[in-house]
Order: sequence, then structure tokens, then C-alpha cells
Amino acid sequence: MTFESRPSGRAVDQLRALRLTRHYTKHAEGSVLIECGDTKVICTASIEEKVPGFLKGKGQGWMTAEYGMLPRSTHSRMDREAAKGKQSGRTQEIQRLIGRSLRAAFDLQAFGERTLHLDCDVIQADGGTRTASITGAMVAAYDAFSKLVERGLLPAVPVRHFVAAISVGVYQGMPVLDLDYVEDSACDTDMNVIMTEAGHFVEVQGTAEGAAFDRAAMNRLLDLAEGGIRDLIALQKQALGLAG
Amino acid sequence: MTFESRPSGRAVDQLRALRLTRHYTKHAEGSVLIECGDTKVICTASIEEKVPGFLKGKGQGWMTAEYGMLPRSTHSRMDREAAKGKQSGRTQEIQRLIGRSLRAAFDLQAFGERTLHLDCDVIQADGGTRTASITGAMVAAYDAFSKLVERGLLPAVPVRHFVAAISVGVYQGMPVLDLDYVEDSACDTDMNVIMTEAGHFVEVQGTAEGAAFDRAAMNRLLDLAEGGIRDLIALQKQALGLAG
Amino acid sequence: MTFESRPSGRAVDQLRALRLTRHYTKHAEGSVLIECGDTKVICTASIEEKVPGFLKGKGQGWMTAEYGMLPRSTHSRMDREAAKGKQSGRTQEIQRLIGRSLRAAFDLQAFGERTLHLDCDVIQADGGTRTASITGAMVAAYDAFSKLVERGLLPAVPVRHFVAAISVGVYQGMPVLDLDYVEDSACDTDMNVIMTEAGHFVEVQGTAEGAAFDRAAMNRLLDLAEGGIRDLIALQKQALGLAG
Amino acid sequence: MTFESRPSGRAVDQLRALRLTRHYTKHAEGSVLIECGDTKVICTASIEEKVPGFLKGKGQGWMTAEYGMLPRSTHSRMDREAAKGKQSGRTQEIQRLIGRSLRAAFDLQAFGERTLHLDCDVIQADGGTRTASITGAMVAAYDAFSKLVERGLLPAVPVRHFVAAISVGVYQGMPVLDLDYVEDSACDTDMNVIMTEAGHFVEVQGTAEGAAFDRAAMNRLLDLAEGGIRDLIALQKQALGLAG
Amino acid sequence: MTFESRPSGRAVDQLRALRLTRHYTKHAEGSVLIECGDTKVICTASIEEKVPGFLKGKGQGWMTAEYGMLPRSTHSRMDREAAKGKQSGRTQEIQRLIGRSLRAAFDLQAFGERTLHLDCDVIQADGGTRTASITGAMVAAYDAFSKLVERGLLPAVPVRHFVAAISVGVYQGMPVLDLDYVEDSACDTDMNVIMTEAGHFVEVQGTAEGAAFDRAAMNRLLDLAEGGIRDLIALQKQALGLAG
Amino acid sequence: MTFESRPSGRAVDQLRALRLTRHYTKHAEGSVLIECGDTKVICTASIEEKVPGFLKGKGQGWMTAEYGMLPRSTHSRMDREAAKGKQSGRTQEIQRLIGRSLRAAFDLQAFGERTLHLDCDVIQADGGTRTASITGAMVAAYDAFSKLVERGLLPAVPVRHFVAAISVGVYQGMPVLDLDYVEDSACDTDMNVIMTEAGHFVEVQGTAEGAAFDRAAMNRLLDLAEGGIRDLIALQKQALGLAG
Repeated sequence: MTFESRPSGRAVDQLRALRLTRHYTKHAEGSVLIECGDTKVICTASIEEKVPGFLKGKGQGWMTAEYGMLPRSTHSRMDREAAKGKQSGRTQEIQRLIGRSLRAAFDLQAFGERTLHLDCDVIQADGGTRTASITGAMVAAYDAFSKLVERGLLPAVPVRHFVAAISVGVYQGMPVLDLDYVEDSACDTDMNVIMTEAGHFVEVQGTAEGAAFDRAAMNRLLDLAEGGIRDLIALQKQALGLAG
Repeated sequence: MTFESRPSGRAVDQLRALRLTRHYTKHAEGSVLIECGDTKVICTASIEEKVPGFLKGKGQGWMTAEYGMLPRSTHSRMDREAAKGKQSGRTQEIQRLIGRSLRAAFDLQAFGERTLHLDCDVIQADGGTRTASITGAMVAAYDAFSKLVERGLLPAVPVRHFVAAISVGVYQGMPVLDLDYVEDSACDTDMNVIMTEAGHFVEVQGTAEGAAFDRAAMNRLLDLAEGGIRDLIALQKQALGLAG
Repeated sequence: MTFESRPSGRAVDQLRALRLTRHYTKHAEGSVLIECGDTKVICTASIEEKVPGFLKGKGQGWMTAEYGMLPRSTHSRMDREAAKGKQSGRTQEIQRLIGRSLRAAFDLQAFGERTLHLDCDVIQADGGTRTASITGAMVAAYDAFSKLVERGLLPAVPVRHFVAAISVGVYQGMPVLDLDYVEDSACDTDMNVIMTEAGHFVEVQGTAEGAAFDRAAMNRLLDLAEGGIRDLIALQKQALGLAG
Repeated sequence: MTFESRPSGRAVDQLRALRLTRHYTKHAEGSVLIECGDTKVICTASIEEKVPGFLKGKGQGWMTAEYGMLPRSTHSRMDREAAKGKQSGRTQEIQRLIGRSLRAAFDLQAFGERTLHLDCDVIQADGGTRTASITGAMVAAYDAFSKLVERGLLPAVPVRHFVAAISVGVYQGMPVLDLDYVEDSACDTDMNVIMTEAGHFVEVQGTAEGAAFDRAAMNRLLDLAEGGIRDLIALQKQALGLAG
Repeated sequence: MTFESRPSGRAVDQLRALRLTRHYTKHAEGSVLIECGDTKVICTASIEEKVPGFLKGKGQGWMTAEYGMLPRSTHSRMDREAAKGKQSGRTQEIQRLIGRSLRAAFDLQAFGERTLHLDCDVIQADGGTRTASITGAMVAAYDAFSKLVERGLLPAVPVRHFVAAISVGVYQGMPVLDLDYVEDSACDTDMNVIMTEAGHFVEVQGTAEGAAFDRAAMNRLLDLAEGGIRDLIALQKQALGLAG
Repeated sequence: MTFESRPSGRAVDQLRALRLTRHYTKHAEGSVLIECGDTKVICTASIEEKVPGFLKGKGQGWMTAEYGMLPRSTHSRMDREAAKGKQSGRTQEIQRLIGRSLRAAFDLQAFGERTLHLDCDVIQADGGTRTASITGAMVAAYDAFSKLVERGLLPAVPVRHFVAAISVGVYQGMPVLDLDYVEDSACDTDMNVIMTEAGHFVEVQGTAEGAAFDRAAMNRLLDLAEGGIRDLIALQKQALGLAG
């Protein structure tokens, strides 16, 4: 199949409209609704005043993530994982990825024996829920740490560098940025890229669902991702009222 | 303790502000965000073209409900039930209650061998999540059945009577309507009432958490509930654009 | 359908024959076989010299209940919950109800950091197993506390007021007391009432399985329950050798 | 330690008092309360009109067993397996043993594509619950098959030979028959023997919990078991009204 | 069916070729590959410097075993127990047997508050996997204790007596030693015998899968087992470089 | 830290010694022991004559993988997943990766409604178990398909292209090929690359456990991986007796 245009009419290097709503719910220390086009994820950051057993007494903190989808966030209803009594392999893979990405963004040594729990719950899915979760959780975590600063418990938000995440893929032979569900279902290669504001990689996960891809395609995909992530991080900072 | 006033300043028979947002998410046949004060629940209704095994071949439909809370919908973070691998007794009790209430509202004989799955997911909790779930699910279910009517698959929405639900309780010795979290935590008696538009009971569940209550108190609570439910059903119909 | 008579020939306000056998098994601190007609439940009360984590150091006690049915206590064999690896929603709902009811009967402040475990195991079911469990567990708990008094560990049995439980329902349009299985399967409205000796409510749980019920029906049902519970509490006290 | 006498005062080859109460509960096709001294087990046999998948279409029947203990059947309360969400290794081992023993007693070819479910629930434990379960389940199964004969569905009870079970052990150096709890806890060697009326072995399970035992001890234990089982089978037949 | 010869051509009292490979894997304190004909089991012994809760502070050690089969160790692929989320009754029965047998071989009082974990993993099955596991685990445990002696943590390997295990059975009416899969599937009676070097029994588990067996058959089977175990223990000692 | 040399003394682009032993166990259609240095994995391929439900009737085949580690394959003993009752997130992530990689290697349309189950069980771990599993499973799958060809059930092995997998990482600032456990524990960036014989990517999964990595580092790592995989595929073909 030859590429003519994207189903959404977007340019190949165009992100979907992004909206970050802070303080979305009232109980969590950080709470962000992230909307990437029709993909909507509630990201909350909750602070717990202790660390898991393997870190007790080491004077450092921990960050961990959980991910879920509401049963009817998807086209056809999925079984509820709580009712089935177990999380799928996909869910576990995603929450491990979110956790690693966020731990790379903050300095675990700098916020004491505390755990930051990141909960990313998809209320509407249209492709890219794992990358939206990371991009949104970055902002929620920043807000939660700001609370600790406000309360005089930390001197500063212990951020090492901002991170954001985006998917790229080869759709009808054409590398494109920020796949929506229609593109995702049809594309041969799908890559999730998590990157810092300096353009360094935190995670790269590329999968050839159809034809394997060569180094040239990979380079083009990484270029697209780099551009997208630069924009996402600018939007995160703007939402937080930080100078870009 | 003697009653002076409600923490929220509401009159004893005053509901919290109610907001029903239809078509809240895009995939479900019915999707409603219900907000009762600070309590917020996403209620979706999904149609499946088959019935559970025990009803196969009987020519009737079924309605069933699931309930969940996002981990940080509450003051302090709760463990995620999907991660723990089981639903709590409280969750199961609530989803059974929602299911029974909605099955009382619709005519199961009148919509063929279909199952309506009601998912009630609390995104922010401030008391009354189970009653808000029922009130919201009523609207979501109505919308889902309307879809079947639009598609020509049903002649009319198979509603027997509207139902809504509300909590009442004795707070500092005073019977009050629609408890919020502060009142709920402090009250002696807590009753959930599910009622039809004709003022008939579908469910009554009263619990004396402190002192047992007498018949006079019960009667006063039921009066309050009856008034509240009349108002809720009017709001449901208004949201659906139906003549009251 | 018009009411003619109850299948059992009982008057509408007539309890089934009740038998309470104390010291039914030898290991438990309290052990009662309760027989309500053909419904038979073994209720044991076991004392543990510690409390759950959330009460540690608060100087008070706790009471908790578990409920089970032998696989062939019922007309057709049910799957064993231990083999299935989980308790049903119904089981959890019932054991939560038993626990709340018994905690209302005793003064948790008055027996130190101890837990009373109530186990209610149905060996034959013919309707009303949850209410029989509560009525029997009251006696078993009393016996267990008496053991602590005998051993000089408590000055008196820490009872606040006796509680008993009974079901009432609308059978063929007629409100009746103490439903057996045949009536229970056929009735429209089913209500479980847990009440103190003073006639105050501890729990009321009414469900309209068919037609919703109005306030007049509810009042008649509560009158029936009140009479039945007065009799049950007299029988509990007589079994315990207490002056009525 | 040298043997002086058994704690119960019984002779070394003396069984505990045995009582078999048939028709103990009313729903099961076979229902027996077996009491061996203070050990009490309810054994029910339930007929299901189908076989497990691996036997479908083979024209033969199946027998299977489940075993449980009420939480306070024992000296100190055990956790309920249904609440823990799994059966212990001990439970599974015992129910496999009961199933094999009963399948050896009946002719699986002779009762069609039916399953007999044997449920053995211990209501009071004082040693020997697994052997009491087998001895009692033999009678319950016989009764259940008799029901099928009465209904004209089988020409005769498809018994191959009666089986019964007993424990033997070395207590203070002395081989003794039918261990109660006190002896069982203190003995070095414990053997469960399941035997037919012809004195043939169906199962032998001997364990040296302390010192290993030699062939002479084994022979003496098997002699004791053989005598005990002859008596048990006579009592089974007498309870069933069969000529010994 | 009359016995003519064993499928393998072995004499009735002939063991399969036995091979014990010590130090089979590099991390475990003891690691043995045992091959009995085509049955191959990896037995590792791991030392943990603590005991289970019920033994804390008692100054003694503990030994416990786990058993597993690789999914394709068998003729047709079995489901993986880790994927099914539970161990079968058979697995649990076997690992309890291995644990009891090894605890009988060593002096639990003599190696301090340590736990020896025995893991027996079948990589190829051809009958007799549980007995091979015991025979191999004996050597692995011996090696692990030797490590503690080498490190100066124990004065000597705390062995009470060597144990080994073998199956015997009645194949086509003939008692035979060390059943392989073909014989095992076809035989009427199957007995697993665990014995010390002194010829004393640690465990005897005999099952009549077809016809029950009499005392004469049992005696012949025990004779065969005794001979086989004498040979196995000689091979264990030879592998360990100990004087027989 | 500045790079001086690899702990193993290997050149930066040098693979560990690889050994592929075909027909390692006798029951599976394909069975390979792969040894990469001290990492040893048994890979079996089992053919099942049906497909999962979602593929029924579509005329194509399926390949799926499971992964496990023996409890003492690692430095300190890990809990057995079957005993814990669930597979870890890491396990699920790995078996999903193996499955995707192998499905990319073969033509699912070309072998009918069959499922190939790949089981990769680590018996000794020293880094790189997931990549060794993929490289070994490729050979096992090839052997299993060859069996179908031999039996006349397939015209040819339905291979699209060979795949192999290797890890690369940045150790003390130096990109190196094929990390062993010591390097893996100490390195900042770890990348697993699965590639075809044509040098095209099937999967790329890079993680910065410490410092994020830039594009130059990534390119150097991919170069190393490409060289390693070329060698691995040559060794796979040589083991299978195929012209390189």
C-alpha cells in the first residue's frame, strides 16, 4: 500500500492536539488529565512517607507506576482486570515502562525515604495510551514534588531532566509521528520513544509487527520522535508555568 | 452531640449540586459523568449481543454492573484491586446492588437476548458513590437503549420506571439528606434508598454504625429520601430531554 | 396470584420451630447449632488474644465473621468456595452483615485487645441462613465471653443489648414472617431485619425482586419483624438461662 | 519412652466408639454423620448426571471427593480455606486419597455417565479425620446408589467390595490401632490403611515422623489395621441393614 | 494378562541405569542431575540463613522441597503451573513427600537456624520422577552441607542415615522393581518406598489402581524395594566419594 | 568510571562461546539446549493441532512462548512462580517478546491451523537469558517444523528469515556486545536487539538504567548488535546443517 495521507489529515510530523489539565481531581498531590487527541488519561501522583522493603534505611526515595484502562475506554468493552483477578502481561509491561521512565526523570537520592505512586488510568483510548501516560505523569509528579517544596519538606523539585514520550511508526510505508488508533492498527512498525529534554534516550522500544525495518527507517523514526518530544516538553513546562 | 448545622451549610433536606454529562466518552453506547458535589463517577453502558449461560434461549435480556474506584479517588491512596488480584467485599456488595437496581428499572423481557454491562468508575469520592452510580447508570442505560431504538433494533426504550438512589442518615442526632464524606464518617445511621418515580422502594439498606435507630427516625429518613429521589428523577429526565 | 395459605401452613406471623443447641462442638469457646425449621447452622465463636493491625494499641476489641455453606447443604450441589479459590459476592455480603450486627450487640471497648471470630457454617439450608447465623452467633458469642468471665479475665459479659435477625417478605401479596425456601423463591419482596431487644434497628435490608413495594407494605413488614425478633430474643435468653 | 497405657485407656487393638447416622441432612442423595470418638465428619454423596470431560462418551461413571474442615473443628482456629483462596497441600492430598479409595469400592462401568461427588466436612477433629471420611463416605455412596436403584435407574448398587479405612501407629514404642489426636501428635510412625472386606489393600500410606520403622513393626501395624477394618466394615453393613 | 517379560527387557529386580552428575549447575550449594534411564531431574539444594516463622528461636534447622516439571518433559505438553497460577494436587503431594523424606535423613538439630531448600525439576519424564527426586536430592543436600563444613560453619555433615527411594509395582501379575513409564501406565499396583541404608522405612505409599493386593504381594514388593534401595544408596555414596 | 577491559577479558565486539545442542530432550518435536557462556536455556517447541479461539477457522497457524527460570538458576534462590501463584511482570514481558520475535521469523499462513508452543526454561543464568531464549527457540522451532515436513504434513519449513537476538550495552562508558551478568549489573544502558539475517530489526528495546544515551551511542550499539547477530545466525544454520 502506498501512502497518500494520514486518516486524520495531519502532517507526517504533526502531533495530535495536546491538553494538560492540572489539579484534575482534588485528593492527589499531583493530578493531571492529559488529552492527546481522543486519548484521555488521568495521571495522579500520590506521596507515601515510606519506601519499599529493599530500600529501607538507604536514605533514598522510590517511584513506581500502575496503569489501567476503564472497561469501556476502548471500542469494544474489555473485561475488568480487578474482576478477572489479574493484570494482563500488557498492563504489567506498560506500568514497568512508566515507572522506569519517571525514575529516570527525577533524582531518587534527593527526596528522602518517600515513595511516589503514579496511577495512570485511561478513560478513553485512541492510540498512544502508554506514551500519554508518561508525558502526563511527568507533570503530575512535578506537581506532587512541588507540594513537598511548599510544605518546606524539600528545598526544590528534584527533577534531573524533563522526559516525555511519543510513538512513531511506519504507516503505508511512510514514517509518521504520534499514531492514533486507526494508524496503529494498520502500521507495520511501531516504536515508543522516551526522551529527555536534552534529546537523550531513556527508552526505545521498536517492534516490527509486519515487515522488519532497516536502519534508515529507524533513523527517520527517531528524528520524528525527537521533534515531537521537544514540543511535548515545551508544553509540559508551559502547563507548569515554567520558563521553557 | 447536638446538631447545629451541616458542615456544608446545606439544609437538612437539600441535595448537593447534581450534574449529569451525557456522551462523556465516545466508545460506549451510553456514557455519563455524574457529579454530586465533589463525588464524580463515570457510568458507561455497553451492549453485548448475548446473554449469560443461565439465560440462553429464554428470549430475555440481562443487565449487570461492575464498580471500581481509581486508586487516588480517595483521601489517601487505596490499593488497586486489579493489582491485589481481587475485588473487596465492599466492591462486590456495591456492584450487586447497582445491578439489582437497574434490573428493576427496565423490562428484561423487552430487549431480546442482549446484556447491558454497566461500569461505574469513581474518579473522585466524597461520599455517596454507590447511590451516584445508580442514578448515573440509569441515564447511561437509557442512552444505550436509545441507540438500539435508533438502529431500529427495538421499538422503544424498555423502561418500566425510572429509578434513582440517595443516602440519608442521622448526623449529630438530626436526619439529613445526601451525606457527603464528612457527614458520612461522623453519622450514626446511614441508609441507602433506591426508589422509583412512583415513590416505591426497590432497595432499602439501613445500617446503625453507632446507636440503633427507632421507627420514628426511620420514617423521617424515608421521607427525606423520597423527596430527594423525586428531585433526582426530575433531573435525570431533564438531562435526557424527556418531559418530566 | 392471591394469597390463600403458606405452603407450610404457618400463620403469617408465625416463626418456624427454633432450636438452639449450645456446646455443639467441643473446641470452640462458644459453639451453637441453630435450627430454624429445616435450616441448620453451626455458629462458633473463637477468641484470639490480639486485634487486627488497624486497632493495635487502641485498647479495644474486635469482632469479625465468616460464613460458608457445605456444598450439599442446598437442593443441588454448589461448588466448594475453597476449591474455586474465591468467596462469592453473596458470601462476602453475608459475612460483612453478620460482623456488623454482632459488633452492634457488644461493647467493643469492654473486652480488651481481643478478636472474636464468628464462624457460621450452614449444614442444611431451607431459607433464612443469614438471619439464623446472626441469631445463633449472638448466643455463641455470649458463651465465649462467659468463658472469659469464668477465667477471671473479664468482669462481666460485655453485652450492650441482645440482637436477633429475621426475614420478612411479601408472598402472594401477603406480608409474612420468617420465609422458608419455597416462599423465598416465590416472593416479590424480601427484607432482612436485625433488631435489638429494645425494638431498635441495627440493619434493615429490603429488596424488591419483582414489583417495588410501597410504604404501607414496608410498615406491615417491619411490624411482623418486630414481633418475630421479640420472640427470638426471648428464646436466646432462655437458652442461655437468663431471666427474660 | 516406654509404653504404659493409651491416654484413652483403650486396649492397643481397640477402636474408638463408632456411630454412623444415615440421612443426616435432607438434600443429598446420601448423607452420613460419622463419629469416631470425638472425630465427627459429615459425608454427603451427590449424584450429577454427567461425567468430566476426559470420560465423555465412554459410557462409564466417575467418583470424586472434596474434603474440608470447619475453621473451629480444631483446637485452635484454622484459617478458612475459602477465605485464603486456596486449599492446602494437606487438603488436596486427603481428597485425592478419598477419591481413589471410593473408586476402588465401586464398579465405575456399572452406573452410566454419572459423577458421584463425595463431600467430607469435618465438624469436630480429634485425629483420624481422613480415615473416618473414607469409612463414612462408603456408606453415603452406598445410600446414593440405592436411590438410583429405587428410582429404577440402576439394577443394583454397583459395589465391588466394601472398603473402610483406619490409622495405626507406634505410640511410645507400642503399635496401636485407631490413633486419637493425643496419640497422633506423639507417635513416631503413622500409617493409614484402606482395605477391602476381603482383607486386600487399596492404599497403604506409612510415614515415620520420628525413627524409621522396620519390617516387623510394619507387619504388626498391618495386623492391627486388618482387624480394625474387619470390624468397621461389619458396622457399615449393619448401619445399612445388610447381612454382615 | 500373563507376564512374559518387561518392555525394557530388564530382569524383575533390575534397576534402570543410574547416573548422578554433581555440580551440574554453578550457583546452588548442591546441584545434581540424576538420570534413571530416561528420567532426568535437576536437584538443587540452596541454603538460606533463616528458618520459617514457626521455628524461629528454637535453635534448629529446616528442610523443605519444591517439585516441578518442565512443560514438555512429558509425552504431550502439560500446562505450565506458573501460568495456570496454581500447583496441582499431585505436585503438592510430591513436594511434601520429598520434604518429609529428606528431613528424615538429616539431623535438624545439628545445623543451626538454617533452611535447606530442595528444588527438584524434571527435565525429562519416563516414570519414577518423585523417587528419582528424593534419591538425587539426598546427594544435593549432602553437597550443600559439605559446603558449610568447608566454610567452617558446621563440624560435620549432619546426616543421620542415607535415604533413597524407588517404585515397585505389579506388572502383568508380576512384582517388578523400578517402573518406567510404559510399565507404570499399565500396572495394577504401584508402591513408592523410601528407605534408609539400614533397611528401615521412612515412607511407604502403595496404591491399588486396579485390583486390590494382598499381604503376600506386598511382601514381595517390599523385598524388591529393599534390594533396589541398597544399590541406590551404594551409588549415592560412590558418587560422593564416600566409602560404602 | 573509565573502561579498561571487560571482566571476562573478551573484546568489546566478542560473543561468548555459543553451543547449540539439538534433540536435548526426547519428547518435544524440537528441543535445544543453548549455552551462551554460562547462560543455559532449554528451548522446546511443541506442536499442537489447533489454534487459539481468535484464529479458529482462519486457516493460519500461531506461535506462542512461555519462559521460566529454575529457582536456583540464579545467584541467590528466587521464589518459584508456580508456588507464588503468578508470573512476574518481567516473565510476562519476556515471553511476549519471545513470541513476537518467533512469529516474525516464520510464515504463519503456511503451516495450517496449528500452534507452536515455545518453552524457554533457564537452568543457569549469567546474563542474556531472554536473547539466548530467542536464539535457541529459533532452532527448536525449525526442528519442530522439520518434523512436520518429514511426516509429509508440510511441503517445507515455513521460515521467512532466520532471527537471532543479542544484548548490547554501555559498560564503563564503552559500548560492548553480549553482556554477561557482571557487566549487565554494572552497565548504564542495556539494549536487546532482535534482527533478521538481512540485518533488519524485529525488535529493539533499549533502556537507560543510569544516564540517558545519545544517538551516537545508540548507533554504535546497533553496529555491535548487527555484527553479533550475523555470527549467531551463521551458528544456528551450521547447527541445523544448512548452508550458511
